[in-house]
Amino acid sequence: MFDVQTLWADFARPIVSADDYLNSLRGRQMNVYFRGERVLEPVEHPVIRPSINAMAETYRLATERPELASVRSEIGGCQINRFLHVATKPNDLVAKQEMQRELGRRTGTCFQRCVGLDAIGACHSVTFDIDAERGTDYHKRFIAFVRRAQVANIVIGGAMTDPKGDRSKPPHQQADLDLFLRVVRRDDNGIYVCGAKMHQTGAVNSHWLIFMPTMRMTEVDRDWAVVGAVPVDAPGLTYVIGRQTNDTRAVDGGDLDAGNARFAGQEALIVFDEVFVPYDHVFMDGEWAYAASLVERFTTYHRSSYVCKTGLGDVLIGAAAAAAEHNGVEAASHIKDKLVEMTHLNETIYSCCLAAAFRSKPMASGAYLNDEMLSNVAKHNVTRFPFEIARLAQDIAGGLVVTMPSEKDLQNNEIGPLIRKFLQGKSGVETIDRMRILRLIENLTIGRNAVGYLTESLHGAGSPQAQRIQIARGMRLEDKKARARSLAGVSEPTSP
Amino acid sequence: MFDVQTLWADFARPIVSADDYLNSLRGRQMNVYFRGERVLEPVEHPVIRPSINAMAETYRLATERPELASVRSEIGGCQINRFLHVATKPNDLVAKQEMQRELGRRTGTCFQRCVGLDAIGACHSVTFDIDAERGTDYHKRFIAFVRRAQVANIVIGGAMTDPKGDRSKPPHQQADLDLFLRVVRRDDNGIYVCGAKMHQTGAVNSHWLIFMPTMRMTEVDRDWAVVGAVPVDAPGLTYVIGRQTNDTRAVDGGDLDAGNARFAGQEALIVFDEVFVPYDHVFMDGEWAYAASLVERFTTYHRSSYVCKTGLGDVLIGAAAAAAEHNGVEAASHIKDKLVEMTHLNETIYSCCLAAAFRSKPMASGAYLNDEMLSNVAKHNVTRFPFEIARLAQDIAGGLVVTMPSEKDLQNNEIGPLIRKFLQGKSGVETIDRMRILRLIENLTIGRNAVGYLTESLHGAGSPQAQRIQIARGMRLEDKKARARSLAGVSEPTSP
Amino acid sequence: MFDVQTLWADFARPIVSADDYLNSLRGRQMNVYFRGERVLEPVEHPVIRPSINAMAETYRLATERPELASVRSEIGGCQINRFLHVATKPNDLVAKQEMQRELGRRTGTCFQRCVGLDAIGACHSVTFDIDAERGTDYHKRFIAFVRRAQVANIVIGGAMTDPKGDRSKPPHQQADLDLFLRVVRRDDNGIYVCGAKMHQTGAVNSHWLIFMPTMRMTEVDRDWAVVGAVPVDAPGLTYVIGRQTNDTRAVDGGDLDAGNARFAGQEALIVFDEVFVPYDHVFMDGEWAYAASLVERFTTYHRSSYVCKTGLGDVLIGAAAAAAEHNGVEAASHIKDKLVEMTHLNETIYSCCLAAAFRSKPMASGAYLNDEMLSNVAKHNVTRFPFEIARLAQDIAGGLVVTMPSEKDLQNNEIGPLIRKFLQGKSGVETIDRMRILRLIENLTIGRNAVGYLTESLHGAGSPQAQRIQIARGMRLEDKKARARSLAGVSEPTSP
Amino acid sequence: MFDVQTLWADFARPIVSADDYLNSLRGRQMNVYFRGERVLEPVEHPVIRPSINAMAETYRLATERPELASVRSEIGGCQINRFLHVATKPNDLVAKQEMQRELGRRTGTCFQRCVGLDAIGACHSVTFDIDAERGTDYHKRFIAFVRRAQVANIVIGGAMTDPKGDRSKPPHQQADLDLFLRVVRRDDNGIYVCGAKMHQTGAVNSHWLIFMPTMRMTEVDRDWAVVGAVPVDAPGLTYVIGRQTNDTRAVDGGDLDAGNARFAGQEALIVFDEVFVPYDHVFMDGEWAYAASLVERFTTYHRSSYVCKTGLGDVLIGAAAAAAEHNGVEAASHIKDKLVEMTHLNETIYSCCLAAAFRSKPMASGAYLNDEMLSNVAKHNVTRFPFEIARLAQDIAGGLVVTMPSEKDLQNNEIGPLIRKFLQGKSGVETIDRMRILRLIENLTIGRNAVGYLTESLHGAGSPQAQRIQIARGMRLEDKKARARSLAGVSEPTSP
Repeated sequence: MFDVQTLWADFARPIVSADDYLNSLRGRQMNVYFRGERVLEPVEHPVIRPSINAMAETYRLATERPELASVRSEIGGCQINRFLHVATKPNDLVAKQEMQRELGRRTGTCFQRCVGLDAIGACHSVTFDIDAERGTDYHKRFIAFVRRAQVANIVIGGAMTDPKGDRSKPPHQQADLDLFLRVVRRDDNGIYVCGAKMHQTGAVNSHWLIFMPTMRMTEVDRDWAVVGAVPVDAPGLTYVIGRQTNDTRAVDGGDLDAGNARFAGQEALIVFDEVFVPYDHVFMDGEWAYAASLVERFTTYHRSSYVCKTGLGDVLIGAAAAAAEHNGVEAASHIKDKLVEMTHLNETIYSCCLAAAFRSKPMASGAYLNDEMLSNVAKHNVTRFPFEIARLAQDIAGGLVVTMPSEKDLQNNEIGPLIRKFLQGKSGVETIDRMRILRLIENLTIGRNAVGYLTESLHGAGSPQAQRIQIARGMRLEDKKARARSLAGVSEPTSP
Repeated sequence: MFDVQTLWADFARPIVSADDYLNSLRGRQMNVYFRGERVLEPVEHPVIRPSINAMAETYRLATERPELASVRSEIGGCQINRFLHVATKPNDLVAKQEMQRELGRRTGTCFQRCVGLDAIGACHSVTFDIDAERGTDYHKRFIAFVRRAQVANIVIGGAMTDPKGDRSKPPHQQADLDLFLRVVRRDDNGIYVCGAKMHQTGAVNSHWLIFMPTMRMTEVDRDWAVVGAVPVDAPGLTYVIGRQTNDTRAVDGGDLDAGNARFAGQEALIVFDEVFVPYDHVFMDGEWAYAASLVERFTTYHRSSYVCKTGLGDVLIGAAAAAAEHNGVEAASHIKDKLVEMTHLNETIYSCCLAAAFRSKPMASGAYLNDEMLSNVAKHNVTRFPFEIARLAQDIAGGLVVTMPSEKDLQNNEIGPLIRKFLQGKSGVETIDRMRILRLIENLTIGRNAVGYLTESLHGAGSPQAQRIQIARGMRLEDKKARARSLAGVSEPTSP
Repeated sequence: MFDVQTLWADFARPIVSADDYLNSLRGRQMNVYFRGERVLEPVEHPVIRPSINAMAETYRLATERPELASVRSEIGGCQINRFLHVATKPNDLVAKQEMQRELGRRTGTCFQRCVGLDAIGACHSVTFDIDAERGTDYHKRFIAFVRRAQVANIVIGGAMTDPKGDRSKPPHQQADLDLFLRVVRRDDNGIYVCGAKMHQTGAVNSHWLIFMPTMRMTEVDRDWAVVGAVPVDAPGLTYVIGRQTNDTRAVDGGDLDAGNARFAGQEALIVFDEVFVPYDHVFMDGEWAYAASLVERFTTYHRSSYVCKTGLGDVLIGAAAAAAEHNGVEAASHIKDKLVEMTHLNETIYSCCLAAAFRSKPMASGAYLNDEMLSNVAKHNVTRFPFEIARLAQDIAGGLVVTMPSEKDLQNNEIGPLIRKFLQGKSGVETIDRMRILRLIENLTIGRNAVGYLTESLHGAGSPQAQRIQIARGMRLEDKKARARSLAGVSEPTSP
Repeated sequence: MFDVQTLWADFARPIVSADDYLNSLRGRQMNVYFRGERVLEPVEHPVIRPSINAMAETYRLATERPELASVRSEIGGCQINRFLHVATKPNDLVAKQEMQRELGRRTGTCFQRCVGLDAIGACHSVTFDIDAERGTDYHKRFIAFVRRAQVANIVIGGAMTDPKGDRSKPPHQQADLDLFLRVVRRDDNGIYVCGAKMHQTGAVNSHWLIFMPTMRMTEVDRDWAVVGAVPVDAPGLTYVIGRQTNDTRAVDGGDLDAGNARFAGQEALIVFDEVFVPYDHVFMDGEWAYAASLVERFTTYHRSSYVCKTGLGDVLIGAAAAAAEHNGVEAASHIKDKLVEMTHLNETIYSCCLAAAFRSKPMASGAYLNDEMLSNVAKHNVTRFPFEIARLAQDIAGGLVVTMPSEKDLQNNEIGPLIRKFLQGKSGVETIDRMRILRLIENLTIGRNAVGYLTESLHGAGSPQAQRIQIARGMRLEDKKARARSLAGVSEPTSP
């Protein structure tokens, strides 16, 4: 018979420090590919490592600023990393956002641990609801899982987005039934799932994955209505890490051209090939009617998590201000005005996320959920403003952002001195420092971390149209029309 | 000797209902002008009355929904109208905003009572600070004033904006020293002030005015650093009510052409000609160093008060949706998309205001003040989004908004039937109801209440550039640059 | 038998000067209503007169600057007013735009004569095409009509927009068949038409009307596929002039409050009650297949005619610059920057219109038609940029735009001096001049001419969505996809 | 004595075909560096080659579509490549733009030959003016140079942007006098210049360079007021090619990951170390008063040249449409609407450029120059709209743009089949084709050609603020204010 304990054996000693975390990733037998090659030890891979460093900061922050990144959990019965906490009051969600912005500032990239956090939040209440209505015991299992995770302080990846194939068809009508993750077999010990999850943030840097359905389902899709948790090295799992803009600058030599040599994001395709999940780690199996709630609660949490981008915005605003100083134009009114505009847009995003957190409400399970309308509004602004902030940063920085010689040129005996001579800015600024700041701006606007700052701001937690659909659902037009009719002097509703 | 009691004799019986309020305005001997004529009884003036109706809703709401619009005050020692409350916790400021949005929805216009509320908030803490540092007793006087006001439930107008004359010069260098309000004389009983205040919201509909300096001052401007309270019918006060777009539609006959016949805003020029203020009602006299704080705190409160515009936005979104229905195009995807965009922009404003309230902090006096950065960001969005919401509303409504025949045409025997025939929309909709909704859209986008929804959204509580200056002050560039340098690998600050 | 000559008897002497034009309007027996009353002599009506003045400028310009506003016509065989000219080369369309921008600058409003001009252009080629394919003689009739019109130098109104009723149904399925203009009877002399046209620009200020179908039709709608010309005082025609924002300021006394006392636009509802049209003036009767071409060509001409709004933009930019000067802030960098932005947007519109004219192509009749894509793009920008220009103008002008006392207040002995004292701007500027400029800004942004500058910029010549549909039709996606595939290395089309 | 003929010996046989051009680049002894290494044969360097391919298309187009890309020149006395033509009528400038858009469509990148073309245009008229006023013979020399260039059909690079150092100081006050290119020595045969030029488009792919001053100069800067031409392999020249986003994907294996494997842009730093220029190739030497004209004319030409970006826009719109098809969502209304918006923005840019060309005016030399205001307006839109087009393209394409596995993953036996299985789109689309289109979108929005499509659209031919300064200069505020005063009824100018 299957023993859950053994699955957790690796985490007998809790992960505490950033170093503990790095060590926890070593020596695992995961099936990871990058650029056509199997990566045996991702933690030592120079292109992957910056994404691991970013995740490690979630541990470092908790040790350096425990008031910000840790919290006492009733579930775990101890002080835990905030990335594993189920919110039980509005301030929990506010504090989460403060932590996310700070990590954005520290890393200038996606630190990847939010998806799992938001998955925990969503599963907490949905399993509770299923149990309440169906007499199942998913919630108890889930609480047990979360308790172990909290005590061990592991990274949980949240796996939601299915490949979807032909988007006009539901799961059971796809030519290939695996295009949505599904249960292919059940036995006494557990279930077996096949399929894939796309764009999986920090997948390879996680310890466990929670997989969830990606959309509303109907009864015929019940085999696709499945939620469970698996360790990342479970048999049958394969990971293909996606290419990012400028990813190979990490191996071009030196640390200048990368712009932000220490930190980057990570997204992977995860393939599930008959992956076994013991029942203790199954949190939904066939309760198709709850798939929609799960998705909506997850996205309502996760869309507010994009507050992290305001941390990246802080870095980019700072970089633009530094570049202006290097050029000696920091006092020009149009420069100052652009910095104000960037700040205004950045703080608008922050405000929307904050408001969604402050306005959170409890669900039946006791977990608090962000305000749905405001969370969608927040994310929708995230799909717009970082693009304008990036444009303004490039405007301030100048064309050198994309025409600058490489670090190796700077080191070359023939041309290095020429570069130092001709790329000097205002007196007192080292040319290499000027170049570093410009490379950071490149990194965030058209380089590796533009992946996270721009494109993922568009699509992460749902593309713009997904937010518009949610906003449409919540906009209460009937009430608004009644107000208008009342003021216009239209006494009766004009339509039934 | 001067007796303050007599000044308050009129308010021996508290104002409770909307009707009480209307009655309280009757029979006063104010010196009010509109369109070149003295208005003896403003409450009966058809053009002015809608602005009084809007103010009256602040009373009606408190009786209909006391949980929203009233609150227990420690100062007054009783349940009071929320428009007279000094915030002593973040939720007070949040509740204030909910009340403001609801009143925006109910009236579709500026209900005018916020300026006084925000003046109370600002004076509470500034008088406290002056007393603490200068040994004065302004705060005690102020508390006594507020207590009387709360118990009597009066409307207080906040008077800040001076004419300013040549904006490149401080008060004492103006060709005409009255271009900023100032103390021209002092005696044993009180002070005498001369000058004027511009754009005074709801001035004629108030009971008392608090006047305050409009900007940072220096020692030579000490006679201009004055704060005090006067009843609106104090000798020496003259009011000139400004013209508004379409104001005279109120007297064109019927109630259709006005668009919103019941409610409108009001702004007046107030001239002070040696107006006497007894010392009990003087809250600053010469403490120039505190003028800047007073202005900043007032604007920080008041910029968040523009949350009311989201209530107007609700009405306009509702009207646009109704107009689309009347045209039978409510299901068109571009129509739905525009309603979503309007809602998104409206809720973005709401979020920013909410965040500024939730993030409020206590000052030394115990009063809570909105977050300054977020309040400025909120107002800055108010200077933009209502214009786009209005454009989209007109887009949905169609050109008839500006080409429609008048109500009198509709009543004419010859052409009334033609209008009913040719302006009919989809089956089941009365032509007159269609016309009413279109007039309401006109009212809010290019009519009388566009004054409040658009132009005052630009300039009220400070024009856009004022917010940009405040955002610039709060954007903490040094911290942001340090973050950028750290990630770029620049070890030391690049500038001293 | 019917004699066409008599219809033209009134125009035996050509209209030359602006005064001639005013005289030509007097003494007509039109059935005109405004605000519920029959208007016997519109030219003497104070609210209507400014719209007549604006039209008169099209005559004045031709006498003052004949090189700009007149042209030799092959049809008329003489020098004619450019508003009656059929373009036979690209420069004709460019010159038309220069004339339109100049008239926009001179009047600050809609001068109303473009619709007829664009109707002439569209009918010229469509009648030619019908004749060529159907053997009719519409084109000959039409040329004869245009020749008379050119020689007499009359104003032709173009009447296109039907009431439409339920927009989901074609003409023949409407509950009321008159909701689209149609032929109800034919006899030996001509046809009889019933229906109405909405939003008719300058209708009452015209001499003749050309009516045209408003959309694509099918065979069952053949009675609605009708084009013809009628004198404005033909029996059976009724006009209801629409209300405009602040229209009655024209009768409030003085000329200040109007903002632009001399000039305004005009739109009317025209009702056709069995109006007789002799065959000489029928240019389409049942050729439903050509309705779409007629509409598309008309809108392609007319969307470019919105270049006139750049003339209004010039006025508004100038007014904002003057207001900034009056406030003494013209050198502030944010003020200059806003004026640059306004200019940039204004010239972008101008560029698009110009490009559409330069890129015009000949049709079979020899008439030149603007480039359809570029004309739609031009108009689409007109639906956006004037709103932002108006917002920026209000930003520069300040809140006084909507809170300023009336001219009557200025004339009042008590308060006039107070207003002069407190509304003074920088030294050397008369308060009344400052007020005049602010009223002009009100006029263009939230007053009577905002009707034309804003709302009609949205809906005139087709609402935004109409342009998007045309842009979609012309965007040649297949070619663009082929280019993308070629560069991406996709060898074959991915879809059949 | 120096013999100019020998300098031209290499070009005795004209370059005709694209292959000729490639051959012409081989075997040169240029001093080129890239990523720290000397590049002996750039044409064979895999990262540089795509930029050469793009330039080669300017030859291919002239052979494939001579009516578009060639023209008869009076100077050369023969049919020449349009990239070497001095415009002598508006249609020359229009035709130039058609050619540029087509090359943008063909290459999806910067084809680099416009700078030289615009330099020729600017020098033509400025040398003429200098000669006319100073009795020099620069124009004769210049014509001789251009004749040779036209006959030989060479690529001319235009070198303008100096490093500038401390931007608050003029050339002669810089700490290092070389921070602006200058004459350091003169002898009987010619001059010797030192300095550098930044961001030099296609420098290494050129045959000759024309160097020009970068800004307005005064008398003390006369040694910096120098214009001349040198072959790219002249002694003393060193080139450092800048890094571009994803440049090394060209050597990552395969052609998929590059997105656009064939074409890319190029920008280099050129260092001049006492480079000799014989007097025959000196076109200005000390006539500092003409530096401003030269810069303004060059930028007026060059800002319109950014019409090429509409060609890239065409490709990106096509790619987005193809991606939507692959996802099976091409009929969704929000997708169609986004494609329309992209087209609208793209054609707005096109219109502005076209208008600037049609509105060109002759200068004294007979050369035609684009309209300065409209050219600045055009470029200013280029600094905005491509960013929004790119955002919309990413919106349509989905997150896979930045998370997609590499081509090597696709080729891997283990995971290749998994990728093909899970990345399949709608039926009938090859997964690899879907990936190719997504990589092209990456290439243009966050990859190698985003350098040209986005960042260079901001800064090429002058950063946004440079256009705003020019727009401010040309906006004729006095005329606009006079119009406003006239309509407002202000009789006299309000300021002297």
